[in-house]
Amino acid sequence: MTQAAERVRHAGLRDKIMSAEQAADFIQNGMTVAVSGFTGAGYPKAVPTAIAEKAKAAHGRGEAFAIGVVTGASTAPECDGVLAAANCVSFRSPFQSDPTLRNGINAGNTAYQDMHLSHVEQQMRQGFYGAFDVAVIEAVAITEEGKIIPAMGIGHMNEAVKAAKKVIIEVNTAQNAQLEGMHDIVHDIGVPPYRQPIPLVGPFDRIGAPYMECDLDKIVAIVFTDSGDRNSKFADPDDNSKRIAAQIIDFFNHEVKAGRLPKNLLPLQSGVGNVANAVLAGLLDAPFDDLTGYTEVLQDGMLDLIIAGKMKSASATALSFSPDALQRFNDNIEFLRDKIVLRPMEYTNSPEVIRRLGVIGMNAMIEADIYGNVNSTHVMGTKMMNGIGGSGDFTRNAFFSFFVSPSVAKDGAISCIVPMVSHHDHTEHDVMFIVTEQGMADLRGKAPRQRAKLIIENCAHPDYRDQLRDYFDRAEKAEKVGLHTPHLLAEALSWHQRFVETGDMRVK
Amino acid sequence: MTQAAERVRHAGLRDKIMSAEQAADFIQNGMTVAVSGFTGAGYPKAVPTAIAEKAKAAHGRGEAFAIGVVTGASTAPECDGVLAAANCVSFRSPFQSDPTLRNGINAGNTAYQDMHLSHVEQQMRQGFYGAFDVAVIEAVAITEEGKIIPAMGIGHMNEAVKAAKKVIIEVNTAQNAQLEGMHDIVHDIGVPPYRQPIPLVGPFDRIGAPYMECDLDKIVAIVFTDSGDRNSKFADPDDNSKRIAAQIIDFFNHEVKAGRLPKNLLPLQSGVGNVANAVLAGLLDAPFDDLTGYTEVLQDGMLDLIIAGKMKSASATALSFSPDALQRFNDNIEFLRDKIVLRPMEYTNSPEVIRRLGVIGMNAMIEADIYGNVNSTHVMGTKMMNGIGGSGDFTRNAFFSFFVSPSVAKDGAISCIVPMVSHHDHTEHDVMFIVTEQGMADLRGKAPRQRAKLIIENCAHPDYRDQLRDYFDRAEKAEKVGLHTPHLLAEALSWHQRFVETGDMRVK
Repeated sequence: MTQAAERVRHAGLRDKIMSAEQAADFIQNGMTVAVSGFTGAGYPKAVPTAIAEKAKAAHGRGEAFAIGVVTGASTAPECDGVLAAANCVSFRSPFQSDPTLRNGINAGNTAYQDMHLSHVEQQMRQGFYGAFDVAVIEAVAITEEGKIIPAMGIGHMNEAVKAAKKVIIEVNTAQNAQLEGMHDIVHDIGVPPYRQPIPLVGPFDRIGAPYMECDLDKIVAIVFTDSGDRNSKFADPDDNSKRIAAQIIDFFNHEVKAGRLPKNLLPLQSGVGNVANAVLAGLLDAPFDDLTGYTEVLQDGMLDLIIAGKMKSASATALSFSPDALQRFNDNIEFLRDKIVLRPMEYTNSPEVIRRLGVIGMNAMIEADIYGNVNSTHVMGTKMMNGIGGSGDFTRNAFFSFFVSPSVAKDGAISCIVPMVSHHDHTEHDVMFIVTEQGMADLRGKAPRQRAKLIIENCAHPDYRDQLRDYFDRAEKAEKVGLHTPHLLAEALSWHQRFVETGDMRVK
Repeated sequence: MTQAAERVRHAGLRDKIMSAEQAADFIQNGMTVAVSGFTGAGYPKAVPTAIAEKAKAAHGRGEAFAIGVVTGASTAPECDGVLAAANCVSFRSPFQSDPTLRNGINAGNTAYQDMHLSHVEQQMRQGFYGAFDVAVIEAVAITEEGKIIPAMGIGHMNEAVKAAKKVIIEVNTAQNAQLEGMHDIVHDIGVPPYRQPIPLVGPFDRIGAPYMECDLDKIVAIVFTDSGDRNSKFADPDDNSKRIAAQIIDFFNHEVKAGRLPKNLLPLQSGVGNVANAVLAGLLDAPFDDLTGYTEVLQDGMLDLIIAGKMKSASATALSFSPDALQRFNDNIEFLRDKIVLRPMEYTNSPEVIRRLGVIGMNAMIEADIYGNVNSTHVMGTKMMNGIGGSGDFTRNAFFSFFVSPSVAKDGAISCIVPMVSHHDHTEHDVMFIVTEQGMADLRGKAPRQRAKLIIENCAHPDYRDQLRDYFDRAEKAEKVGLHTPHLLAEALSWHQRFVETGDMRVK
């Protein structure tokens, strides 16, 4: 059987096979395009470059060429990167992490809307983004009936093919054909007032089909590709990460002993990044078995828990592995088949499901302030990093929500505990635990001034504690309006200002 | 039949009838007490005063006496007010609005934790507040089986009687006995990982029983009272409120015509206050029928929509009326019986249900900033007003979410549109529409700088537009770090600082 016949089993659709350049002809200046991809998995590998080339040619002729791009989450250099380098992304939403795109956003070239990931699919369906002209998605294969088998990431793909007028499918032969059967996709969740409960009551419950449905008449192009996902390496957990992980695991032990947490904990969510991954690595040696995962992106740490027999099952919308972990995944795919399920992101990030299951959320942060507000997105209040992703979906609805970060960055020039965060992504109402390598602050049941003392004494780096105590003391003493949340308004953001001006938050 | 026999139908429980002073003897220094009440409805009227007297006597003897108080939401002078005046509230959560209590919070006498209302019951059940010693709740009556019929507000009462070791019930004979049957209470929603979907698919669905269950052995006291709820008057909608309402109704018209909203809209939520109430008043004359309500507190505006036949049914956790509206409610209670349902607040404020139903959220705010962040709780960043209430539960999960405010306060000395809000309760990720009497900003699908232009030009008061344009322009030009969210860090909170120092946000 030919590659085309194997991967595009629907005979009629084989007529749509064409080059990426031909497929890119369906994308015109001014269009809004839904592009698959979630944390470096499941994104198209060829068509974006063809679009970028088309844009550069148009720009070379002095013609305008720019498109709006709505993805599941972050993609990779050959998707967000090439489009941003061609300066053809007028609008982008939601999460992103490509350096070139980020530069474009922070140079003011790309209008970027930073959304909670659970909102994306429903707002597409409800028309809040306007019309979608084209969807470009990655698949492993297309079935005899023309149903689509996604690859390592689903993200918003299920809604993208419904919302878009035309669909371009990249069939990626480098993706393991054995992924077939690992997805769980409900065709349509509906719009209010015609929605029903999501019947997920356990993290591994299957409530849909392993295939994604798409109106075949919409499929205008099928492009073959054969290159892998982004597969960035993780750093090995460093001492700070290990200290953070140890505190969270100690807390779990304490809660299990007190009877407030089941022995196998509750479903775990872990955000992207090395620190969150380190917590999962720490669980390899912790006295908890039969763990479960309910997360948006499943990375090395969770994979290793499953392979080691510590975690019995996990649900995610994307698999984002280092090259080594990808090898382990492919080597063990038959063992993993009944332990990992991939869902559309409106299910993995659903407030309904997260709250019902009692997910334990663990997410990285840029900084927290003394009152427990968290900044996940902006450097010095003005520069967008990657976006909020699903951290708000999980934090607001989690049973326990942890925000983790080393207490300082840039060799101590930046304190991750500040008087007031320079951007608010998670408010004092949402944040339960702040953990740095210095210690943990349990903010539950605490008023702002109580939180301030805990966060300063437990979480701040010793180099910054006096400076924070001084701010807090003076704010309390100077307060004329109200002592509930004492602040020196003229100084609240001065630490960031000082860093911008001098390169250091420390008062010399 | 005696009053006691009519209202306490369980013969055995009549032995527990005693005075408020006797009941207050169950409350000791250092206890945590769950007190019923939600927006001036359903709070105990007699026992709090007895506790306050006990505290004052103890303080007079030089003894410590303070308790932690966790309510459903705000109560009234004879509950929060008397306790705060006796300076015996060491901890308080969640929403409050009593001036004496607010002063205590802002003087630093009461540690106040401002919670999302949907979190309160589940965190009580999960032990996050620690143990509850006593619950003090208001009821209309107790049935033959000892089941409790709540009065005009349920709030967190269903969890309070389960979480507390002892229960004191105030049976209020001033409350209409015909309220029996209007409540819908699920005995136990469970804790993760044993939770099931909440089977509400329409705002008026009944999924529980009209009575609240309580372990009879826990009931230590029954106190009779006969005074009404807070019943504050509403101001008649002023011109600003009417202008705000008209814009929202215009938008509804537009969306219905475009086919993006059903003809009977979607279930309406309206926060407390005059402006939100004015929107509902505006719907009396709007071309929408068969409206529904899914809200936390049902006030005059929604009642009048139901009585006028414009709204077919509404769900709430409390009925908070002006004296006139209370009369209309009581006069029409048989007509209203199959149109109003009262539920525990973890159902009315459930993210699961709000998102499924596609509730339209309309909430007042203190201020918004040019990037779409909203402050609902703090005056000048430091003084707590009433708390976040359910505004976060609704805003985050609503189909449409509106924040409304007149564009200026204090005769123009305060702009409700500022460069940066002085406290963040709803972030840029959550806020869809900002509406003032000047106009509306539709922030959907917009990046921060696009939002800034819309909010300044559409929503700010003309007296402040130049000042806002100037801030935004200079922030864009001065930006060295990132142009995604331009700010002048040293000036971002200067408008509030200026108001504190000079009494006016305007630059003279």
